[in-house]
Amino acid sequence: MPLPERQLISRLKRASQTSAARFAHRPLIAGIGEDCSIVRIPSGHEALVTTDFSLESVHFRREWHPAKSVGHRCLARGLSDIAAMGGEPAAAFLSLAIPPKVPQKWVDDFIGGFLALAKKSGVVLAGGDTASSPEGILADVIMIGSVPTGKAILRSGARPGDLVYVTGALGGAAATLGLLYSGAAKLHARSFPAHFFPVPRIKVARVLRQKNIASSMIDISDGLSTDLSHMCDESGVGAEIHEQKIPRAKIGSPRRTVEPRFALNGGDDYELLFAARPRTSVPCNIVGVPVTQIGRITRQKQMRLVLGDGSVTELKPRGWEHFGRASTR
Amino acid sequence: MPLPERQLISRLKRASQTSAARFAHRPLIAGIGEDCSIVRIPSGHEALVTTDFSLESVHFRREWHPAKSVGHRCLARGLSDIAAMGGEPAAAFLSLAIPPKVPQKWVDDFIGGFLALAKKSGVVLAGGDTASSPEGILADVIMIGSVPTGKAILRSGARPGDLVYVTGALGGAAATLGLLYSGAAKLHARSFPAHFFPVPRIKVARVLRQKNIASSMIDISDGLSTDLSHMCDESGVGAEIHEQKIPRAKIGSPRRTVEPRFALNGGDDYELLFAARPRTSVPCNIVGVPVTQIGRITRQKQMRLVLGDGSVTELKPRGWEHFGRASTR
Repeated sequence: MPLPERQLISRLKRASQTSAARFAHRPLIAGIGEDCSIVRIPSGHEALVTTDFSLESVHFRREWHPAKSVGHRCLARGLSDIAAMGGEPAAAFLSLAIPPKVPQKWVDDFIGGFLALAKKSGVVLAGGDTASSPEGILADVIMIGSVPTGKAILRSGARPGDLVYVTGALGGAAATLGLLYSGAAKLHARSFPAHFFPVPRIKVARVLRQKNIASSMIDISDGLSTDLSHMCDESGVGAEIHEQKIPRAKIGSPRRTVEPRFALNGGDDYELLFAARPRTSVPCNIVGVPVTQIGRITRQKQMRLVLGDGSVTELKPRGWEHFGRASTR
Repeated sequence: MPLPERQLISRLKRASQTSAARFAHRPLIAGIGEDCSIVRIPSGHEALVTTDFSLESVHFRREWHPAKSVGHRCLARGLSDIAAMGGEPAAAFLSLAIPPKVPQKWVDDFIGGFLALAKKSGVVLAGGDTASSPEGILADVIMIGSVPTGKAILRSGARPGDLVYVTGALGGAAATLGLLYSGAAKLHARSFPAHFFPVPRIKVARVLRQKNIASSMIDISDGLSTDLSHMCDESGVGAEIHEQKIPRAKIGSPRRTVEPRFALNGGDDYELLFAARPRTSVPCNIVGVPVTQIGRITRQKQMRLVLGDGSVTELKPRGWEHFGRASTR
């Protein structure tokens, strides 16, 4: 096995062992070093599986993103998918293809960022694969989680009359990306956490599932307009959203509120978008995260946006595709 | 979402639906179109998870490998990992990064090869991710399977005195690779199935688990010498192998037996290497696949090779690394 890979594997194996020791109560039974990892799914639970690519120059750029941020973000995507189903994350798998010329420090920091978020989320690094990449860093993260049987919150559960909610504030990640594209002076990652260190809403999602609040849910990874369209498509419904109700993120130092277009179409905040039956009691704050009602589900299969002056326009899915190919989402 | 990806996703979604409909009894509950796929792990079972990269110019070359073979081989790797644990495959996830210039027919044939093997193996395509690759095709295949709790066959179970067995015949895939490297005229894939369309030993592994035959097992993906060293390392033992007992594959048309070096060090046959207690009755044929005893496990932590003339030499792990970086394994 060529050297860089052998080194990488032993680093991952060490990281996995540390990670497994730290979470001895966690469901990993065998990890790196066997042909498969064995993951115990709690009795009465179903397994959740999601995979997410993170490609250099597509999802991140080394000149923009510190390696720790890249490691954090590529795990955040999978955690957020588990949250979107109301699930409990269990084990992460990291498949990593690295060009020979990437410095060891970059790889160490990347794994550091990955493991820091894993620790915070109670997730063990359970395995993966490594390879030498001809060009560009490529990570594929697989998250395994679980959810009590029949309790997963699907995209397809929204019904006409349901109210539409979002967690947190939107647009911070995309507005930061806008600054990066505009060639802003190097941004301090700590002042722009929504973009560099987004927090998946695992705990909020757990409450929404346990209290049977959400009839339908999706995470906002592609942008509110696009992810709402996914929910509407899968549920066979439409929606009406009030632009002025959409909570907009504040970014930077000093902090300023992002433009509405970022809140409406910007992805990567990893907030949750959910629907709830009109009579369901929905707290306006769950485990410290604000929850805001922004509209309602309609029978008419169309998405409409109510503007500040009361006029109504068609809401088109203009999520991350809006930013084009090199969107580093 | 840029066009090629959108097309690819809808093709995968169709493929997944067809695949799910075909296996209505299978454990997929929700697939592509939700944030996660939901996989039901049978009660009393643990989940098995394995991920395998297949990279163009590392694991395959478009000028050598028909797209169907590439699709088949990248699923075969994951299936073989499940077999190596004595597990039952359940669901596959395909993450695929394709450069914009790759013809649609290539992608269709790739998916065709992938799905044909999935069908044969009773596996559903349950999800995945797609991306545009800056250079080279890259597939990451995630296999989810299950095994009755506590019944997984680990690499670490071999004890001194155990006998060592292999399934099938070895070296066919690597010898074929040797022909490709030597610039042989275009090879007909059907005459070299060990390389182009290897058959993972799921059924053999099931028997080995159900009858409690194997004390330790690994699939031969890196080459007998290297995979035996993995088994010895994880079990804290050594082994003595008789070169003349190693069953050598026959390849080509007319068929001829491969050289011993390919059987000893060539990977990618996806046969099984297992140990069994000396008193365990081991059939010499399991579901039509020959099983051959080739040596035994020793207390001394060294691997030794007994040659035809009775002399003994050290057996070094010279698996796929022997072929160097561009081994297209």
